Amino acid sequence: MTLDIERANQTAVERMTSARPMLTGIAVARDVIPGLRDGLLLHAGPPIAWEKMSGPLRGAVIGAVLLEGWADDEDSARVLVEKGEVAFEPCHHHGAVGPMAGVTSPSMAVYVVENTAHGNFAFSNLNEGYGKVLRYGAYAPEVLDKLRWMNGEMANLLGAALDVSGGLDLKTLLAEALHMGDEGHNRNKAGSLLFLKLLAPAIARVATDRKAEEKVLAFLGDNALSVLNPVMAACKAMADAAHGIEGSTVVTAMARNGTDFGIRVSGLGDQWFTDLAQTPDGLYFSGFSAADANPDIGDSTITETAGIGAFAMAAAPAIVSFVSGTPKDALNATLEMYEIAVAEHPSFTIPPLDFRGTPVGIDIRKVVELGLTPRVNTGIAHKDAGVGQVGAGLVRPPIGIFEQALVAFAERYDVA
Amino acid sequence: MTLDIERANQTAVERMTSARPMLTGIAVARDVIPGLRDGLLLHAGPPIAWEKMSGPLRGAVIGAVLLEGWADDEDSARVLVEKGEVAFEPCHHHGAVGPMAGVTSPSMAVYVVENTAHGNFAFSNLNEGYGKVLRYGAYAPEVLDKLRWMNGEMANLLGAALDVSGGLDLKTLLAEALHMGDEGHNRNKAGSLLFLKLLAPAIARVATDRKAEEKVLAFLGDNALSVLNPVMAACKAMADAAHGIEGSTVVTAMARNGTDFGIRVSGLGDQWFTDLAQTPDGLYFSGFSAADANPDIGDSTITETAGIGAFAMAAAPAIVSFVSGTPKDALNATLEMYEIAVAEHPSFTIPPLDFRGTPVGIDIRKVVELGLTPRVNTGIAHKDAGVGQVGAGLVRPPIGIFEQALVAFAERYDVA
Repeated sequence: MTLDIERANQTAVERMTSARPMLTGIAVARDVIPGLRDGLLLHAGPPIAWEKMSGPLRGAVIGAVLLEGWADDEDSARVLVEKGEVAFEPCHHHGAVGPMAGVTSPSMAVYVVENTAHGNFAFSNLNEGYGKVLRYGAYAPEVLDKLRWMNGEMANLLGAALDVSGGLDLKTLLAEALHMGDEGHNRNKAGSLLFLKLLAPAIARVATDRKAEEKVLAFLGDNALSVLNPVMAACKAMADAAHGIEGSTVVTAMARNGTDFGIRVSGLGDQWFTDLAQTPDGLYFSGFSAADANPDIGDSTITETAGIGAFAMAAAPAIVSFVSGTPKDALNATLEMYEIAVAEHPSFTIPPLDFRGTPVGIDIRKVVELGLTPRVNTGIAHKDAGVGQVGAGLVRPPIGIFEQALVAFAERYDVA
Repeated sequence: MTLDIERANQTAVERMTSARPMLTGIAVARDVIPGLRDGLLLHAGPPIAWEKMSGPLRGAVIGAVLLEGWADDEDSARVLVEKGEVAFEPCHHHGAVGPMAGVTSPSMAVYVVENTAHGNFAFSNLNEGYGKVLRYGAYAPEVLDKLRWMNGEMANLLGAALDVSGGLDLKTLLAEALHMGDEGHNRNKAGSLLFLKLLAPAIARVATDRKAEEKVLAFLGDNALSVLNPVMAACKAMADAAHGIEGSTVVTAMARNGTDFGIRVSGLGDQWFTDLAQTPDGLYFSGFSAADANPDIGDSTITETAGIGAFAMAAAPAIVSFVSGTPKDALNATLEMYEIAVAEHPSFTIPPLDFRGTPVGIDIRKVVELGLTPRVNTGIAHKDAGVGQVGAGLVRPPIGIFEQALVAFAERYDVA
């Protein structure tokens, strides 16, 4: 049988775009994430050992070890890790995704997303909001206290609300948010408000403690990234639906661990293709500069993988005040991505482009042929653990990983 | 002293754009609206007698008479009105504004907006959402039941929440909503969610009945026009701040009663300039056509008067799927309005136009000189009472009212 790459890619993208990610609940990570066990921490990006981890990922690891009670202080946590008593695996190996450091530990609460069209599941931890947060490598007592509250009182209330709500349709939410100036990765203002709107009545119905209810409603509403984590899980569920299609050159994961940028390809199984991650270009918060920036980090590139984020930037002209550039650049970002995409998304449309579908399904062949890598919108982490976010900007993966993947594809499928 | 119209207009617009409308509370209309008394109904647009009222305004009048208990059924209500025992005055004569029919009766709950920069107040009733509603002339028992619930349980809860919230800054809300695809008149999706987000924690704090709380949160969240009425009051407060500037040709009110379109001008006191309202062009809901449309109705043109609505349409490309046209038309609508505006708004900016301020302050001289009338986005009412909304579209005021105003200005100020 002849290899029909075009057809395989159409199948992959058709599965990605017809996926129906529903947020069905909240659970304790160890209860739902396959293979997550005591002593194991999940992290963003492709596999990485402690020795090669950057500052923010190390900080998040220390914080998670403390949160789990595997050590009592920073020094003991570090010793434990250096003795090899903590295992590390990518979130992506367990159907999960996490923003920035992405560290997900067994006791954390996670969103459960089911792709009801194809039956696969995806998971993501809860978004911590701004300031000192674990995902940027902070592990001070107040960071852990906030996580304990989130994983306890907040997760219980949100979980109970989701139970009575019958689940939230994240695809519809995203489609609407793209008509309200979001791109779904770095700008989730509208999506987070839609999320709040869908949950608030259910929260009121199930809440038993007025103070907890008020705190959760304020926390969800004040955090314009509230919905980022469920959106990432939705994108993971959509991208996973496109994975494993024999002969497909469509990218089904892009992820960074703060050191390396890695991709996976639909027709190439579980292999990662990796190279050093670049440092984003962007705007820095007051008091910080490019010298403070960590290389690109986080699983949030799953949004671009699924056809939103920088690929939908034309829908979000206001984002340029955050990531740099002009509204025209935002339009051009999306237009450029059509060059390397297999299709236009039937559900995610862009009003300023006459409701054209977002570019979706990155074809490694086109990336290599055109020398044109995917665009990514991203937060910028300080290179030292615990400092937090220092800016936001734009970045691209190294082109070499697409070249590696194409070589592997040629070998695997015996094509010239 | 020479008449310096330019300077007067700058003063007027500077007052309009520096106004700071704060939503400070909810009250019973008769307790806060100056001059509102038993037997008096306020309505949208310039003054009009019962005999000249269109279907939807008549229907709303009958509904309000029933709501107030001035009559027990439709026939008695009609007889009462025809005997002249109900007085009618424009909302605008009482510092108030109301969408569509705009009928505001003494027992209704109203939002109280204070312009803290200049000390003036404005008022608007509560938005009823979709379906059979008084503002489109419906007066069936379920319409009145819903109004009783809104004016009772909902107003009490929202009022208590506003009391503990310390007031909401509507100017900041609007500025943010314009960056989220709203134009503030026909599209208030983002603004309504921001409104919900700001109120929800306070609602949770003050609610004493869980069912009422859930119902109010769902009602606010499901109604993408929730914030329209406070936004209209905010625009009224801003426009009123610009009224009464000696020598100014800036429009400070545009309003329609379903029969006539009227304007007021800053330097021309309380005089209305009116002519027959046109019928909007637009998209009709399934089963309706232009033959069903009532002429243009409502005080919601106060949004365009204050520099949003159709004037900010470039910020809201997705609106064209509701009002007709293409995203390019939306851009052009705003660009055209700069031609007749005195200034660009310092607080309301449009991302797709490189964050240019919206056109603000309609100059009657420019309108007449260019033959270019203001654009208005609007809902379309069925011409018969009680049918409701049949579509949404675009409309313009008759140019004659600007010519009348310019003649009056020339007479008043003795200019050639």
